[in-house]
Parts: sequence; structure tokens; C-alpha cells
Amino acid sequence: MAEAAILIIGDEILSGRTQDTNTATIAQFLGARGIPVRAVRVCPDVEGEIIADLNALRSRFDYVFTTGGIGPTHDDITADAVAKAFGLAIDYHPDAFALLEKHYGAENFNEARRRMARAPVGATLIDNPVSKAPGFRIGNVFVLAGVPRVMRAMLDSLSPMLPGGKPLLSKTISAHTGEGVIAKALAGVQNAYPDIAIGSYPFYRNDRYGVSVVARSADPDRLAAVESALFTMFEGLGVKAFAGEPA
Amino acid sequence: MAEAAILIIGDEILSGRTQDTNTATIAQFLGARGIPVRAVRVCPDVEGEIIADLNALRSRFDYVFTTGGIGPTHDDITADAVAKAFGLAIDYHPDAFALLEKHYGAENFNEARRRMARAPVGATLIDNPVSKAPGFRIGNVFVLAGVPRVMRAMLDSLSPMLPGGKPLLSKTISAHTGEGVIAKALAGVQNAYPDIAIGSYPFYRNDRYGVSVVARSADPDRLAAVESALFTMFEGLGVKAFAGEPA
Repeated sequence: MAEAAILIIGDEILSGRTQDTNTATIAQFLGARGIPVRAVRVCPDVEGEIIADLNALRSRFDYVFTTGGIGPTHDDITADAVAKAFGLAIDYHPDAFALLEKHYGAENFNEARRRMARAPVGATLIDNPVSKAPGFRIGNVFVLAGVPRVMRAMLDSLSPMLPGGKPLLSKTISAHTGEGVIAKALAGVQNAYPDIAIGSYPFYRNDRYGVSVVARSADPDRLAAVESALFTMFEGLGVKAFAGEPA
Repeated sequence: MAEAAILIIGDEILSGRTQDTNTATIAQFLGARGIPVRAVRVCPDVEGEIIADLNALRSRFDYVFTTGGIGPTHDDITADAVAKAFGLAIDYHPDAFALLEKHYGAENFNEARRRMARAPVGATLIDNPVSKAPGFRIGNVFVLAGVPRVMRAMLDSLSPMLPGGKPLLSKTISAHTGEGVIAKALAGVQNAYPDIAIGSYPFYRNDRYGVSVVARSADPDRLAAVESALFTMFEGLGVKAFAGEPA
């Protein structure tokens, strides 16, 4: 099974100014295609940091998705850092240059905007239907925008580049009880289904505490079996459980 | 200046089921105390992964804050992983054991709940006024809960353990223009103020595009100077700018 990692590039995430949402968006997008995300890193707009994190992730995982740092300003250094990480030259990508020149008009296509046409030599462009400036793919790395609505549009654009895997499915069973009440029995279910990832997540909603148990697998039959085992477990504990998240 | 890193532990973040908000909360909390966050990683509930990420971060940064994996269920393995990362034994912390036994009552203080009293030998507890089960500090690592409201309460509890630094301040100046219009002049301001981190962040709000320029420093005088330089820059470009974020 192919596995992915995410590299979020940007001082604004590290400072807490901006709440990252791209991680969850990419994870859900890839999960639906059978590609689990196994690691995420957030790094500053510092070339050496981007290179070190990208090389660590791309050598270990089948795919790496980066977000951020591909705009026209001085702090947008992702394309250069990615080229250096791969040991490749960087230049204007002719297609990107042409489409941005057309978009801005030759008279407004200044040096800063031209920066957005730069990519490592050999990169494949990723279409940006929202604001034109494209992302790119080089090797197993997909370089996407940081602005969430642009990033989402790029994800849809690159979808055909990914192999179709069996989607990761999940079943959630919730109950208004404490994790400490179910923990021992839940560990028993996990032991009986070692191939299924079972997580336990406490919640607090509408002034009520409870726990959601989430089982994940690409195999719908195994998932149905573990769901049934979980309901049986709750019943055995005398705890009323229900499918899904609490309202 | 002391620097920090964050390690978010949990399959639910990597799958996209749960939107992490702890990173931004911790970053803002530390920023106000003059401690910038320089790196964030998200890892799965897998012991070897937690140990590898924690050791990489704790050897490099002054402080590491972890969130998640300290509940009573089988997938809560953070305390064990942290102990192994430090090469320390793990045992019930007597104070944690006593306070949880009192909280649950001896008859309900089962094995799963007792797990929440475990900590590496030598750890200092971090008070949890919300749901009692404490976090802990060992060396330069602060181990916090994953549930955001519990995590926030623990942050407040550990505040006295941190040295008081000069808070990181920021000034934001926004304008309804494109990044490509200001990029060249902005790079000039950055070059003139190399000690100030200046970031440029496009926005799209109320159907209008624009850009927010954010300058960050612990020195209020330098910040005032760069703010003035930025307003002068916008004026020179004939672009109307305003302090703060767009409404």
C-alpha cells in the first residue's frame, strides 16, 4: 500500500497566526484513494529546513505533498528549496510562463509574478483553476499552494496522477461513557482484530462526555465484523452505544 | 532565545478525522512568552515513530510539547514511548495515583484508569483542572493531553515552569492589492530590516482579494520602524493600506 507524508511550509503556521487546515483536507483526499498519510511536518520559510524535511520525507514515503511558499513574494522559496533538495536546476517552466503572461497581461507580468512560473527542470505542472499560478510535481513530490481554496483545487487537478487504491473506510461507534469503562474490553477487541486500526477518542459535546471508537480498514467485510464486535462489547458492558458521532 | 517544537501524536490527525488546533494554541501561548515554535511534527500512535520524532526534536530544541496519547485506552502509548525515548523506567507516579484514586473512587479505579497515573520515573506532574488525569514534564519535554480544552488548561498549569521571555510582537498591514504588485518593494523593506521576519499572506474575504503583510519581532521600537517603512512602501506604490487584518 502506498503511503504519503505532508510538509506544511510557512512561518504563519508555526507562529499560530494561521490555523492549518490543509493537513486534514489532504489526509481525507488521500484516504478516499487508499493512500494513508503517515507523517506530517511543519517547517519555517527557511531553505535549509525545507530541504532537510523534504529529503527526510521523500526518501521514506511514496508521496510527499507540500503546501505553501509558491507565491511571488520574498518569503516564497519553496520552488528553489525543492529544486535544491533534488539537486536539480530551476528555471521558468515554459507552459507556466505562457499561461501567467496571458493571465496578467505582458505589461503587468513583472519579475515577482514571473517567479511563480519557476519550477525545477523536469517538473510537471499542476493546474490551478482558482488563481492560475500552477503547482508542480517533481519525482514523488507534489508542490501545492498554501491558500486552502487554491490547494483544494490543485488536489482535484492532480487526482489523475495518483493510482486508484481501495479507499480507507471507517466505522464510528459512540457512547456516553468514560474511556476508562471500556478500555479493557476495547483492548480485547483490538487484539482479536490486529489488522484493523481501532482508535478511542473522548468527546465533550452539548455538556455531555463520551467516547467515539473508530475502526479503519480498506476491507468492508472486516470492518463490518469489527463493528459488530464493538456493539457486542458495549452491550456486554451494559453501555448503550450508537453508530456514528454524537449529534 | 529559547526555541520550541511540537509533536502531535495521533492517528486521528493523520487520517483527517480530527482537525488539529493544538499547534496554533501552543504557538500563540509560547509566542506570548517569547518562545518561538520552530518545528511541528505529527506522528501516528506507533511507539517507534513517537520515539524517533521525540528524540529528533528534543535533541535540537530547548522545549518540546507533545499532545495526545495519555488516556486510558490501548492506543494511549505516549507515556511509555517518552520513557523509552529517555531510556527511563516507567511506573505509577504516587501523586497522580493518589489523586486519580480519589477522583474515581477506589472501587472504580480500574487498571485502565490506573494507566493514566503512569509516568517516566523522575517526571514532574502537570496539573489538569478539567479532567484530573495529569500531564507531566520530563527533561525538556512537556507531555500534554490531546483534547483541546484539557490541553489548554494544562498549558496554563505549566506556565510557571517556563522562563519569562520578551513576548514576540507582530504588526499587520493589509491592502486590497495583489502580492505581485508589492513583492519587489516588499523585498526591499525586508532587506532593509534583516532582523525582522516579514511575511506576506494573500487573503480572500467578502469577495475581495488582498494581502496582509506581517512583521514579527520582540523589539517594539524596531517593529514600529518597520511598520512605518511598510506604510511608506504602500504609499509609494499608490496602494491604500490599513493596519490590521481585513474586516
